[in-house]
Amino acid sequence: MTPIRYGMVGGGRGAFIGAVHRKACALDGEAVLVAGALSSDPERARASAADLGLDPSRGYGTWREMLERESALAEDERIELVSIVTPNDAHFEPALAFVEAGFAVVCDKPLVHTSEQAERLAAAVRERGSVFAVTYNYTGYPLVREARDLVRRGELGEIRKVVVGYTQGWLSTLLEATGQKQADWRTDPARSGVAGAMGDIGSHAENLLATITGLHVTHVCADLTTFVDGRKLDDDASVLLRLDGGARGVLTASQIAIGYENQLEIGVYGTAGSLSWRQEEPNELVLRKPDEPVRILTRGNPYLGEAAQKATRIPSGHPEAFIEAFANVYLGAFEAVRARAANTTPGPLEADFPTVEDGARGVRVIERVVESSASDEKWLAV
Amino acid sequence: MTPIRYGMVGGGRGAFIGAVHRKACALDGEAVLVAGALSSDPERARASAADLGLDPSRGYGTWREMLERESALAEDERIELVSIVTPNDAHFEPALAFVEAGFAVVCDKPLVHTSEQAERLAAAVRERGSVFAVTYNYTGYPLVREARDLVRRGELGEIRKVVVGYTQGWLSTLLEATGQKQADWRTDPARSGVAGAMGDIGSHAENLLATITGLHVTHVCADLTTFVDGRKLDDDASVLLRLDGGARGVLTASQIAIGYENQLEIGVYGTAGSLSWRQEEPNELVLRKPDEPVRILTRGNPYLGEAAQKATRIPSGHPEAFIEAFANVYLGAFEAVRARAANTTPGPLEADFPTVEDGARGVRVIERVVESSASDEKWLAV
Amino acid sequence: MTPIRYGMVGGGRGAFIGAVHRKACALDGEAVLVAGALSSDPERARASAADLGLDPSRGYGTWREMLERESALAEDERIELVSIVTPNDAHFEPALAFVEAGFAVVCDKPLVHTSEQAERLAAAVRERGSVFAVTYNYTGYPLVREARDLVRRGELGEIRKVVVGYTQGWLSTLLEATGQKQADWRTDPARSGVAGAMGDIGSHAENLLATITGLHVTHVCADLTTFVDGRKLDDDASVLLRLDGGARGVLTASQIAIGYENQLEIGVYGTAGSLSWRQEEPNELVLRKPDEPVRILTRGNPYLGEAAQKATRIPSGHPEAFIEAFANVYLGAFEAVRARAANTTPGPLEADFPTVEDGARGVRVIERVVESSASDEKWLAV
Amino acid sequence: MTPIRYGMVGGGRGAFIGAVHRKACALDGEAVLVAGALSSDPERARASAADLGLDPSRGYGTWREMLERESALAEDERIELVSIVTPNDAHFEPALAFVEAGFAVVCDKPLVHTSEQAERLAAAVRERGSVFAVTYNYTGYPLVREARDLVRRGELGEIRKVVVGYTQGWLSTLLEATGQKQADWRTDPARSGVAGAMGDIGSHAENLLATITGLHVTHVCADLTTFVDGRKLDDDASVLLRLDGGARGVLTASQIAIGYENQLEIGVYGTAGSLSWRQEEPNELVLRKPDEPVRILTRGNPYLGEAAQKATRIPSGHPEAFIEAFANVYLGAFEAVRARAANTTPGPLEADFPTVEDGARGVRVIERVVESSASDEKWLAV
Repeated sequence: MTPIRYGMVGGGRGAFIGAVHRKACALDGEAVLVAGALSSDPERARASAADLGLDPSRGYGTWREMLERESALAEDERIELVSIVTPNDAHFEPALAFVEAGFAVVCDKPLVHTSEQAERLAAAVRERGSVFAVTYNYTGYPLVREARDLVRRGELGEIRKVVVGYTQGWLSTLLEATGQKQADWRTDPARSGVAGAMGDIGSHAENLLATITGLHVTHVCADLTTFVDGRKLDDDASVLLRLDGGARGVLTASQIAIGYENQLEIGVYGTAGSLSWRQEEPNELVLRKPDEPVRILTRGNPYLGEAAQKATRIPSGHPEAFIEAFANVYLGAFEAVRARAANTTPGPLEADFPTVEDGARGVRVIERVVESSASDEKWLAV
Repeated sequence: MTPIRYGMVGGGRGAFIGAVHRKACALDGEAVLVAGALSSDPERARASAADLGLDPSRGYGTWREMLERESALAEDERIELVSIVTPNDAHFEPALAFVEAGFAVVCDKPLVHTSEQAERLAAAVRERGSVFAVTYNYTGYPLVREARDLVRRGELGEIRKVVVGYTQGWLSTLLEATGQKQADWRTDPARSGVAGAMGDIGSHAENLLATITGLHVTHVCADLTTFVDGRKLDDDASVLLRLDGGARGVLTASQIAIGYENQLEIGVYGTAGSLSWRQEEPNELVLRKPDEPVRILTRGNPYLGEAAQKATRIPSGHPEAFIEAFANVYLGAFEAVRARAANTTPGPLEADFPTVEDGARGVRVIERVVESSASDEKWLAV
Repeated sequence: MTPIRYGMVGGGRGAFIGAVHRKACALDGEAVLVAGALSSDPERARASAADLGLDPSRGYGTWREMLERESALAEDERIELVSIVTPNDAHFEPALAFVEAGFAVVCDKPLVHTSEQAERLAAAVRERGSVFAVTYNYTGYPLVREARDLVRRGELGEIRKVVVGYTQGWLSTLLEATGQKQADWRTDPARSGVAGAMGDIGSHAENLLATITGLHVTHVCADLTTFVDGRKLDDDASVLLRLDGGARGVLTASQIAIGYENQLEIGVYGTAGSLSWRQEEPNELVLRKPDEPVRILTRGNPYLGEAAQKATRIPSGHPEAFIEAFANVYLGAFEAVRARAANTTPGPLEADFPTVEDGARGVRVIERVVESSASDEKWLAV
Repeated sequence: MTPIRYGMVGGGRGAFIGAVHRKACALDGEAVLVAGALSSDPERARASAADLGLDPSRGYGTWREMLERESALAEDERIELVSIVTPNDAHFEPALAFVEAGFAVVCDKPLVHTSEQAERLAAAVRERGSVFAVTYNYTGYPLVREARDLVRRGELGEIRKVVVGYTQGWLSTLLEATGQKQADWRTDPARSGVAGAMGDIGSHAENLLATITGLHVTHVCADLTTFVDGRKLDDDASVLLRLDGGARGVLTASQIAIGYENQLEIGVYGTAGSLSWRQEEPNELVLRKPDEPVRILTRGNPYLGEAAQKATRIPSGHPEAFIEAFANVYLGAFEAVRARAANTTPGPLEADFPTVEDGARGVRVIERVVESSASDEKWLAV
């Protein structure tokens, strides 16, 4: 299988998530990085490209330059897909431009700053039938896919309640004042958007809920707090949710819970059973049925559904983790790119990744949560 | 040490929690059951007394009879303390009457049906300086007491956020329709009060939060749901909380989470550290400090504070559990009774139990949560 | 039900395990302590009896005195059962004497010092059909009984391998040199017998293995070590086992594993499934079957067998622990005493406790392990 | 940094571990596969090379052909390192030949079939100062490296006891009779060597013990069993160990424990503390010190030592797992290759991988364990 040629926007020196995207793409040998506009600073962008061993002619100073020059290359040479890993404020313009120029796009989350942007982007994708994936990377875990399948197969019956939380502690002090780059942009409204914890990690929680249950948030009642003096955005979020079909939910996101690392966890309670999953032990999925022993489903076993099987590389007990889940989102996008090149329609197992619509819905939820927190009205419709 | 003579109201044939109270009292040999009005049905009450081997003359048909006859006994013969373990609707009258007659009282939770009743009861207790304990039994766990001490000693700094949840699944169907006695009264507004899950288990969650953090709920924003068709009270509660001093909280209580047994758990996040505890593994307390390994504190160790040490019977690794925690609440009440008899003032370690004020506050929170759930206003003050 | 009248040998001031026995007996109200020879020192014995509120006439100075005087009491007044909770060297004589005098006996483990003593005692019990229980207390856990049932019902198929370990750290220094009473006698060959860790805790491990699997040790190959300078007995044991019917085993017991509290754990692997259980989280039993999710069985659920149901007091999720398990052993002995008094034969569920034969077998295993450790021969038959 | 050019022996169609090696090499972009002799069947070897997109001229039919042809290429074109991922019987010849021809080698474990082969290979490596790594991949986990550092820094004091177990269930039936390729060669003495479970997974356990503690096995007393009828090699091993300096150990390895996936776990008990680690939750390391709370060290934190920090890619709470650990062994070999090319000496942090000496020691232990199991002598010196 010939690897997909991809380019990257953002992710140069000093960045964090760009390197994760590259490792995820490299892992399975299905893609090769051939171009990049790796920083908003052109010089730094080119130096970063050199660091990565890119051909100097394809280490671009800006994403506009990359778009123009790659578009001019022969079809079998130019990049097929662009990965956008910049801070949130620099997603919309390149994403829209690359979509409009006919490239496949993988974009980090939250998708964009406003639901207006989100709608324009989604419309562009719909219009062209573009391949567009949003790296809600936790959806790539095999057992998240199994959880989704259990719900779809009716193992849990009708969903009544969902409790999802994303708990971290790394922003329990004013880390942004120390110059720490990740803290700096994530707490800056200009780059991060209207929400802090809610946007950065609450968006993952919302997407995880929607992915597993297939239910969307219809109403929110939120309490956002900024606990750390001098911080410009919320660092803690507590949200009551109403979901499609009468289900209820609670979403919490916190970045001030000292000593918590990356505890994303979800519990889903239905009329026929319950499930729970925790990101820090991703190879286990807990299923509870009435009057039966608790069942621990583990990755790599024959009793799992096709989606979980497909998302697994190595035998059970040989743990797979964050990078593999990230890679699974990319593998889905790659399959969609190949299918499109071959003029075929990929099945749902093949092109299994969060879409621009998922991303747009996430942006709307963030916006409404922020509004709700400032409002005296109890419930805001999404 | 001469055992305390106690009587019991409720807890006869077919009851559940009465037997737990009796085992808790028997465990350490510090109290002996000598009288009882064990059912609202006089015949059943007397038969239950015979089952328990009580002297027939002290197996009363009603609590009023017990009150009258015990009051007439010699001081060194009559009961010193009465334990009230009836359904919620039958707490107020006997509790008030026994207090007014000068007896010590241990009463199950939630204390009473209305905050008006709670205030009357609390006033009576205050007026007489009575010994009055409410069996928020989870406060008796050694590591809950350690958690409270960690907060008091400032190990967590200023508390910012508390997340407390109490998750069960036993009412995920209309169990009350089958005649199951526990389900029957707990879902009946006449006996259980204005709230279902919120009253039965949410009240434990509220008390656990208050006990550990020392913070009280100032405002609530609640969403109560009745998921099971035909049920008369909520079986699920999600509540946003505002606490003293600017702290935030989330409280959930659910009885429809299939396969969950009795998962009461709490996380407390402060400016200097975090702690978490889970009732189903009560011998572990997790403490997190910035940039340090997670610490698991376990019962029975020398590094624990005095209150946790005192609440422990056997060495670490030999697990203690629910009944022992229950017994610890009683031991506190017994010490208070002895101190009062000796005209001494017990120290806080000696008379360590939830008070009538704790119970009254719990009733107010339940009431306001119910109102909030029905209201369009976002925040209701407690 | 009239409580059983029991007496106690040992367990006075400064003792540890005696108080646990008393709490276990008190918990369910089925027995009442009416007599005691609570110390080898007569004065201390009488003072301890006063501490416990015994009638002074039945606070004896020696067990011989207790035997003589109780035997002389009317049948409906004298003790029905004696509980022997002295250090190991003081089990044999009173146990044999009380058996021969027609009393029921509950004796702590390891039963006696030598297999010759064990055989004499077992013969006396057999001859008279006495009720005689050995407090291998871990067998009283509901989920240990469930594990035994799973094996008996064939859920695991034929047993191939058992790995059992008992890991503690409290003797990692020469604690006996500090005067700590528990360390003092347990490391003294005169009182503890030929083995240290192997006798004190290895004997529990051996019994747990035999109880759950129904298999007996046929050959041992042992390596006992005394790691702490100045100690007189082993503080660490590693033993290869051959079991009935070709099964293999490994038994470890250590008291020098710093920070380990009381980690008794067992894994049993059969041709049709595996199970594992850990004493420090006793309310969970793990069952694994081929190509199925791992199942966690928890106490108090309807899918458990009769023995586990019977050994449970309160609903699932309300944890029961060490004292309750201890009490279950006693409840079995009490049922046997009652049955004998009524001239009936108790069923296996009723009189469920470790017998003198179990105790005798334990003594033989300890002896052979000690011999094996000193031998160049690889395998010694038990 | 220019990627290392490497070739692979074995790992073609139908193989398992070869793909893991390739993913591990690809993950960090530090190596590129440019040549291969991917099967013992030349046609399959060339087809496998085509599958992987290798230049057809470098998809060799045999390793001898690869050795000859690569040796003839220019120094800046030929492979710098060869990765040998064949069944055990096909390690020795290519490993020796590539070493003698001056190539760096990464070889799977167990190293070779006999200690005579191991000695010859080790001698060749010593003579030439070759880079030679053995993929005891579990040593690449960051927290295994931290465990090693804790021991080296004296945090555990003097090591007294080590308990290491590797428990699997996949060979609980005669899987080799079904044609399953992994089962087929691993249970075949001709390809796997003198040991089954002991060689395949027991060797990992032995190496983990030696890596963490720095102690070597001096004597063994073993009981190997073949539980599955028709199997030619052991599927279960229980071994008592004597270690350097008087420490004791127990090693178990089993492939018949139904439902166990890949449970490699180790406990190390010293005079100043204990540690434990479990492969299936590799991001946690448990440290116990006297009279202190249990500490859970987690990957990616600033309190970890340099070796663990260096072996980490992404922040704490974003789990890394099996492939990353595997990649860490390779990264060490790559650094050694680069250092050698640059005529520098890599520091211990740079060239951190298991050596040919580790592999040779492992072979000797396996041999002696097999001899011990067949012997009536209790202890065999290694």
